[in-house]
Amino acid sequence: MSDQTAVVLVKKEHLEFQKRTIPEVQDPHYVKVRIMSTGICGSDIHFYKEGSIGPFIVKAPMVMGHESSGVVVEVGDAVTMVEVGDHVAIEPGVPSRYSEETKAGHYNLCPHMRFAATPPVDGTLVEYYVSPEDFVHKVPKSIAFEEAALIEPLSVAVHANKLAGTKFNDTVLIMGAGPIGLVCGQVAKSFGASTILYVDVNDFKLNVAQKSFGATHILNSKELASNVSVEDAIKSLLNNKKINVVLECTGASPCVDAGLKALSAGGTFVVVGMGANSISVPMNLISMGELTIKGCFRYCQGDYKDAVSLVSQGKVDLKSLITATYKFSDAIKAYEAQLDSSIENRIKTVILGPE
Amino acid sequence: MSDQTAVVLVKKEHLEFQKRTIPEVQDPHYVKVRIMSTGICGSDIHFYKEGSIGPFIVKAPMVMGHESSGVVVEVGDAVTMVEVGDHVAIEPGVPSRYSEETKAGHYNLCPHMRFAATPPVDGTLVEYYVSPEDFVHKVPKSIAFEEAALIEPLSVAVHANKLAGTKFNDTVLIMGAGPIGLVCGQVAKSFGASTILYVDVNDFKLNVAQKSFGATHILNSKELASNVSVEDAIKSLLNNKKINVVLECTGASPCVDAGLKALSAGGTFVVVGMGANSISVPMNLISMGELTIKGCFRYCQGDYKDAVSLVSQGKVDLKSLITATYKFSDAIKAYEAQLDSSIENRIKTVILGPE
Amino acid sequence: MSDQTAVVLVKKEHLEFQKRTIPEVQDPHYVKVRIMSTGICGSDIHFYKEGSIGPFIVKAPMVMGHESSGVVVEVGDAVTMVEVGDHVAIEPGVPSRYSEETKAGHYNLCPHMRFAATPPVDGTLVEYYVSPEDFVHKVPKSIAFEEAALIEPLSVAVHANKLAGTKFNDTVLIMGAGPIGLVCGQVAKSFGASTILYVDVNDFKLNVAQKSFGATHILNSKELASNVSVEDAIKSLLNNKKINVVLECTGASPCVDAGLKALSAGGTFVVVGMGANSISVPMNLISMGELTIKGCFRYCQGDYKDAVSLVSQGKVDLKSLITATYKFSDAIKAYEAQLDSSIENRIKTVILGPE
Amino acid sequence: MSDQTAVVLVKKEHLEFQKRTIPEVQDPHYVKVRIMSTGICGSDIHFYKEGSIGPFIVKAPMVMGHESSGVVVEVGDAVTMVEVGDHVAIEPGVPSRYSEETKAGHYNLCPHMRFAATPPVDGTLVEYYVSPEDFVHKVPKSIAFEEAALIEPLSVAVHANKLAGTKFNDTVLIMGAGPIGLVCGQVAKSFGASTILYVDVNDFKLNVAQKSFGATHILNSKELASNVSVEDAIKSLLNNKKINVVLECTGASPCVDAGLKALSAGGTFVVVGMGANSISVPMNLISMGELTIKGCFRYCQGDYKDAVSLVSQGKVDLKSLITATYKFSDAIKAYEAQLDSSIENRIKTVILGPE
Repeated sequence: MSDQTAVVLVKKEHLEFQKRTIPEVQDPHYVKVRIMSTGICGSDIHFYKEGSIGPFIVKAPMVMGHESSGVVVEVGDAVTMVEVGDHVAIEPGVPSRYSEETKAGHYNLCPHMRFAATPPVDGTLVEYYVSPEDFVHKVPKSIAFEEAALIEPLSVAVHANKLAGTKFNDTVLIMGAGPIGLVCGQVAKSFGASTILYVDVNDFKLNVAQKSFGATHILNSKELASNVSVEDAIKSLLNNKKINVVLECTGASPCVDAGLKALSAGGTFVVVGMGANSISVPMNLISMGELTIKGCFRYCQGDYKDAVSLVSQGKVDLKSLITATYKFSDAIKAYEAQLDSSIENRIKTVILGPE
Repeated sequence: MSDQTAVVLVKKEHLEFQKRTIPEVQDPHYVKVRIMSTGICGSDIHFYKEGSIGPFIVKAPMVMGHESSGVVVEVGDAVTMVEVGDHVAIEPGVPSRYSEETKAGHYNLCPHMRFAATPPVDGTLVEYYVSPEDFVHKVPKSIAFEEAALIEPLSVAVHANKLAGTKFNDTVLIMGAGPIGLVCGQVAKSFGASTILYVDVNDFKLNVAQKSFGATHILNSKELASNVSVEDAIKSLLNNKKINVVLECTGASPCVDAGLKALSAGGTFVVVGMGANSISVPMNLISMGELTIKGCFRYCQGDYKDAVSLVSQGKVDLKSLITATYKFSDAIKAYEAQLDSSIENRIKTVILGPE
Repeated sequence: MSDQTAVVLVKKEHLEFQKRTIPEVQDPHYVKVRIMSTGICGSDIHFYKEGSIGPFIVKAPMVMGHESSGVVVEVGDAVTMVEVGDHVAIEPGVPSRYSEETKAGHYNLCPHMRFAATPPVDGTLVEYYVSPEDFVHKVPKSIAFEEAALIEPLSVAVHANKLAGTKFNDTVLIMGAGPIGLVCGQVAKSFGASTILYVDVNDFKLNVAQKSFGATHILNSKELASNVSVEDAIKSLLNNKKINVVLECTGASPCVDAGLKALSAGGTFVVVGMGANSISVPMNLISMGELTIKGCFRYCQGDYKDAVSLVSQGKVDLKSLITATYKFSDAIKAYEAQLDSSIENRIKTVILGPE
Repeated sequence: MSDQTAVVLVKKEHLEFQKRTIPEVQDPHYVKVRIMSTGICGSDIHFYKEGSIGPFIVKAPMVMGHESSGVVVEVGDAVTMVEVGDHVAIEPGVPSRYSEETKAGHYNLCPHMRFAATPPVDGTLVEYYVSPEDFVHKVPKSIAFEEAALIEPLSVAVHANKLAGTKFNDTVLIMGAGPIGLVCGQVAKSFGASTILYVDVNDFKLNVAQKSFGATHILNSKELASNVSVEDAIKSLLNNKKINVVLECTGASPCVDAGLKALSAGGTFVVVGMGANSISVPMNLISMGELTIKGCFRYCQGDYKDAVSLVSQGKVDLKSLITATYKFSDAIKAYEAQLDSSIENRIKTVILGPE
């Protein structure tokens, strides 16, 4: 079998193009996909910079990439869900079919999960990738491949809003207008929320939130007077309207604190962003207001399907997230650019190809 | 109208017997109760010692007491739920009937709640107390008044277990074997939990847990080797059996941390104890395990009813909580004794009477 | 005290204008409303024609009307939710504040409910009507009174969709395109449903569904070939797309049967329409598909608020329901016209005034 | 490979012992089980008598049996959940691992389910049977094989009670004291129900309910005065205590009707028994009481595990169900006896062996 080129993290701060064997479709329920576009995620950058995230440590060279779209080029004998030629978004984590978590409807919690570009599992920044048929999701051909690649982060936002129980007429506070925050707000709107407030420190992102991602209100928390807390500014901006849902997308301690203080009694706070291992919370407020905090991890059954529907129905404009694209042959430059703090107005970078 | 004696907190660390007017039944849905027994709660002691709890500050003399039982001595014209002569447990917090929280099934979150012995509302340590008919709960005459007084903390435990969703075959971890922890464990057992582990630093309480409150396992966290974390000791004691539910009844930061670290993916952590305003939590574990944290505040519709049933059916032995009783005329001594750290083996103190 | 004119059902098939005393605001939480518009509901017509609905029997003259809007003209001393001059939609059923159903969040199931124009309680077809402040709901002055009157049936649709759990991307089948069916479909759309199929026998109503009430598909079940079942026609029209939710708004036995047969495994069927006391259901299909059937009765906490929001946000166009209006002085003619089967293309009749 | 003996339904009313090939463990996640005991289920008898149940038609000879226990005699290379020598209860339905129902937590609704002794899938009345490792459930060796075989119907009861949401202090009505009804009542008790009323027409079964399956009340509906309805007799026996849950285990139309009429507002009715395809329900009561009806089909993730726990913890005495046993060599006689209406006091028949 011939070889293909892969973008490989050899170790912390060291990426290389390496040759890898093109994989075969060996299981009758598997398909082979020609990769067409791959987004760069915060976790990719974290692995690149630090060589680890929490318990996941890069100990051997690992192919990068887990936000990918492509074209089905080969299908196993038992495949019925997709056909050769279909455009697909790849769901990058495949759980055990035998674990109780998977069969109970929470495959994202399966302890045997194999997730692309999470050590030691190789990722999708290659030419050909194989996957079970139920972990590639057909998208209409009218959707560009770079947009289809971003169905991965959109699925996170779908999952977060399902955990939050976002529904008609809700008031939703989004902490952080990065790529995940932006799609979280737009999904909240599609789920029926009528008031959506974004808090961030970056006016460019807040303007994108307002223009393309459903913001009814925005707040730049950097511009508050020194004697005004973020939670008070939020309440004031909303005229004390009750906030049902907070989607915390920063992982930053002050945002967690302000979000919980802004949340109304009985409300739900979803931890979407990852950050410090230990973060302080206003526990007596949580008690007295019977607040609910929910951890949120990736996505599970039905989330990708809803994400594809959101894009197909035109409810989410994923292209508005993309602030830079690179060719596959420039993939290493794409990563290096993520570490360059002089680049402004960045939301999402997508690698096109391999050509 | 004649007067009655009340136990009054004049200010921080200053309790007095004072005279108060005996209240009248003025609303047709109200009843008058002769008080027979009153438990002392951690919050009472906190008000006595500090003069405040969070936003609630004792600014004027306030009658103490909110865990009381008694006998109905008079009923308004519209009353149908109880009769003169009935023994009752008094539910000490009456919400507005007009708030959306009350009508939505969460009267504990009603912002207009009037709760006995929470400033500025007077409590139950008097001879006669008036209450709406639906906030006094008939108990069988076979149940002693001092036991009936403790239906209040038992209702907290019922509410906590409902929030936790405790169900058949669950494994429940109780942090803290004080009065609330002990009844939480016993309620968990009645809700079907098959494994109940108590963690505390006091062997006397842990033994009570084992003898009378459903413990299948106990752990004295003070006796661990210095290189063993509480969460590891817990997991080891349970042979890595998955913990579905943690009921945190201490309010102490290390217990919150250990409880969350011991909880299995997808599990629920209920914050029953009040403590520091700000507490650190292992946020990345919450994310990756999709843990749920729920604040828990008092009780709402149906909780008192279930608490009465638990006692009536003999499923909870509230007498085993009582380690000291005082006459009403010694009520101030009863409070003083709570501050005496030389008294060992204390769980719950009950004031009998007024005579 | 002066008198006012009321539309009174003296007995079956016998309506009269009668004089009634104008009510006083006697409770500090009550308000007085000048009635401005009142819709006629199927239940009104049923009482007019039959003198009873199930257990509710007209035994004494009863004022008609329960779908009303008006202007607040007087408020009790404790009122904080509305002010004199506010335009309001009147929620016509007031439960006991003491029942466990009310406090558990289900006041629609309160056995002590007093519901306007349900015997023996008088209705709203008068000049002045008094109500507790929390059962009148402020509407923006930009909304016409005849539209505000129809917030009552819209609240039924909100309640039905909440029971159904209608959510993003659902496929919803509406059996019956009468006034309740039409608003049910529109609410389903606002809750996120992406496919909404109406089935009816009347092309006029189906066209209204398509023009103004969110239909993505319509089916006239009268026009099917004799060998095609309604459920097969539904499945074929939707290309076997799974139907998650059926909202049955006819009360007709064949519609119940077809709706259940069209519903997918795991789906929810909500009984919105009232009809025969006993109706056959395909029980083995219910078993094998684990279908859920839910009864739906009026509305409870939060439903009116969401209905007002739907109209305020322009998501529901209640005016498109109105096919006839009558002056208050012609109210009896309005009822008589409901019985005239020669009138075609009728959806909703509204009585304007009293002048 | 050598042959084994199987109990085969050749066609309606025609059972034979036939030779079948002993199956091999070909998948690394599969195990081979030596069958030790097999219960006879109502559905088996229905297939024997009628040759079909609803859409499932016996078109070719089919091995009978789906309630079986045995000993693991061989395991595939990847198996970790059980070991050779373990005693196991066999879960007889294996779904597709790729269907959305399975991954959403409802594998019982998987359209690709292969269920033992449901045409065209062969059953367990053989010597050796192969199954995936996660569909055999280890049971303690202290539990007899004939008891372990009945973990299958017990899992149905666990599933039914989970659908019902049976919880502490509930009042549960069981229609029908056959094998499924009896275990449903006992599971309800283990889930916390405090009042359990069985209705049947057979005093022997009602006595078993009272002696061994948690009945707090029993009612023989055959012995009612002709002017007393079953629902009135139920309400009277319970002093109008509210019934939260009805578990209908007969499939008989009058029982469905009486059960729904006895259920309180807001209650849940679970359809456990299968019967006529079309059954009448009191639809207006369903509406006005917001009753919920849920279909119940087999069991899904976690149900077998809880059923094993119930038996292991001694909460359910499955032996009390068994009223007759037969040797494997008499299996055909065992089936014939099921059709003999002269046999009284029959609950459950179990086939021991093959020897």
